[in-house]
Amino acid sequence: MKTGNDYIRIPAEKMQSEFTRILLKAGFTEERAKTCAGIFTMNSIEGVYSHGVNRFPRFIKNTLEGFIKPDAVPSLIHKAGAIEQWTGNVGPGPLNATFATDRVIELARENGIGLLAMANTNHWMRAGAYGRQAAKKGFVMICWTNTCPNMPMWGAKDPRLGNNPFVIAVPYRDEGIVLDFAMTLYSYGKMENYKREGKKLPYQGGFNINGDLTNDPAEILESWRPLPAGYWKGAALSLFLDILASILSGGLSTHQISSCLSESCVSQVFIAINLRNLGNFSSIENSIDLIIKDIKGSIPENDNTKIRYPGEYIADIRKENMNNGIPVDRDLWGKICSL
Amino acid sequence: MKTGNDYIRIPAEKMQSEFTRILLKAGFTEERAKTCAGIFTMNSIEGVYSHGVNRFPRFIKNTLEGFIKPDAVPSLIHKAGAIEQWTGNVGPGPLNATFATDRVIELARENGIGLLAMANTNHWMRAGAYGRQAAKKGFVMICWTNTCPNMPMWGAKDPRLGNNPFVIAVPYRDEGIVLDFAMTLYSYGKMENYKREGKKLPYQGGFNINGDLTNDPAEILESWRPLPAGYWKGAALSLFLDILASILSGGLSTHQISSCLSESCVSQVFIAINLRNLGNFSSIENSIDLIIKDIKGSIPENDNTKIRYPGEYIADIRKENMNNGIPVDRDLWGKICSL
Repeated sequence: MKTGNDYIRIPAEKMQSEFTRILLKAGFTEERAKTCAGIFTMNSIEGVYSHGVNRFPRFIKNTLEGFIKPDAVPSLIHKAGAIEQWTGNVGPGPLNATFATDRVIELARENGIGLLAMANTNHWMRAGAYGRQAAKKGFVMICWTNTCPNMPMWGAKDPRLGNNPFVIAVPYRDEGIVLDFAMTLYSYGKMENYKREGKKLPYQGGFNINGDLTNDPAEILESWRPLPAGYWKGAALSLFLDILASILSGGLSTHQISSCLSESCVSQVFIAINLRNLGNFSSIENSIDLIIKDIKGSIPENDNTKIRYPGEYIADIRKENMNNGIPVDRDLWGKICSL
Repeated sequence: MKTGNDYIRIPAEKMQSEFTRILLKAGFTEERAKTCAGIFTMNSIEGVYSHGVNRFPRFIKNTLEGFIKPDAVPSLIHKAGAIEQWTGNVGPGPLNATFATDRVIELARENGIGLLAMANTNHWMRAGAYGRQAAKKGFVMICWTNTCPNMPMWGAKDPRLGNNPFVIAVPYRDEGIVLDFAMTLYSYGKMENYKREGKKLPYQGGFNINGDLTNDPAEILESWRPLPAGYWKGAALSLFLDILASILSGGLSTHQISSCLSESCVSQVFIAINLRNLGNFSSIENSIDLIIKDIKGSIPENDNTKIRYPGEYIADIRKENMNNGIPVDRDLWGKICSL
């Protein structure tokens, strides 16, 4: 948790109105500025600062540089049954992904399952946001994006794979349960945080420039050789997610997304499943309850360990940040206010 | 590669006819015995001995014990658009999964994408076989199974998650490219092999009974605490695959599949996508070519490293085993011939 002298706490409403002001200035229409500001604010409220408030200045920079077109909306390229292929027309990633999620839900409502693939879109920020969006409406979501090359193939030194965040979301009570993970064991954002705090990673997170495994984040940030989650398995999964994203959307693949500074024109896939269509719909919540109850009955490795399902902690963070304000680096907030 | 004095090489035809004989004796009809023998033989030809010839005696044992019903065929429980829910009626896993693959391909042919979930089926042996089956017909396949509990939740000591093998297959040239991986970093079969050969694992593969990470396969087989691929990430993915398998099929979840000896009544999900439906179909092979070419252009970590895509080696193994016979442990083959 970010606390201490370098951080101040900004009320969510204040953050959202500040973001809206800046987005309007960057060329967004009023409605789109408000929606986009809402996504960045919610990501921050729920503790994903790296894809919320911390990333906002870069999002504005990429917009002003022309990599993100504030007024571009998605358009349909091809439709075949329960599959649709769209182009994001290089519009704002979070708005395109929100649109895609709503649209693939409609496809799933009509067909039980639907797939929407989108070419030429931009970084969607927090992947799990779209899983959560679908789960809250009662739909399973499986979605992923490709990225610029930032992770080497297994056995290689130079980054040619993306970390390609992957999401599975399942409706469950009010929240949904959401799995949201990138293919590197530790995200670049997390490694930067450990480095800044002068800490080692809990587990070896990559190779240093000599090709040795290390838990020193600075060495990994120097070598650009983060460890794929599951070594060869994470590398292979990343490769397949990129292949599917590019062939299903007809868009660019990781090796064609050359610049990690703008990371423009990525390809994304959204698959939604309508649980209400299933014969066993009425017993699904109970089935999930039993699974969660079983894993929570595990023997913890020590007395301090709490067994939790992915994303279980989010409700607590949201509550804290809504009550006390969102923690933001003081200098960063100053910079944002000057935009 | 299995060679040396303890191994003999059995011609594929001989293996298939021996398997067929035994399956007939175990109560399979002639056609089903032949198909099932073909699957076990092909898994062995392609080098997946653990789910081919090495597993065959256990498959027969489970059949004779009544956990696998040789004459049971799947039946449709519920249909809603492009989704179908079936029960496997506790029939032979490989036959049920072959059927499910053919059927979900039909759903994808009609709808672009299709989903078939199957409850009450049995171990399908080699997961990748069904991906390959679909890819050869021009369909993307995403499929997985749940299993008995054989891997602890992250932070826990006792196994409550399955290793839930997961497959993504993409049509590519004659073969398809197939990702087929279990959620443990090393499979139990692989750890048994290392132990038998007195070798350490290349990377830490689990915890010993003291809770320390180890690369000693014997220690991990003792503790039943294999490492999830990607630590907390593989554990979380396993959890979600189990949740989806059980809620989509209406079948059992991992905690309800109590015995790892029979591992009966598992739940499986098959999702097929028809690439011919896409607007960019004609350029897909070229897109994949470019991706493969790019990753093969990686700088290898040393001169002996070959950068290969998942399953690339299979064509070589198949060729060798077709030419020279399939390597089988001499005692095992004697045991099979006496069945």
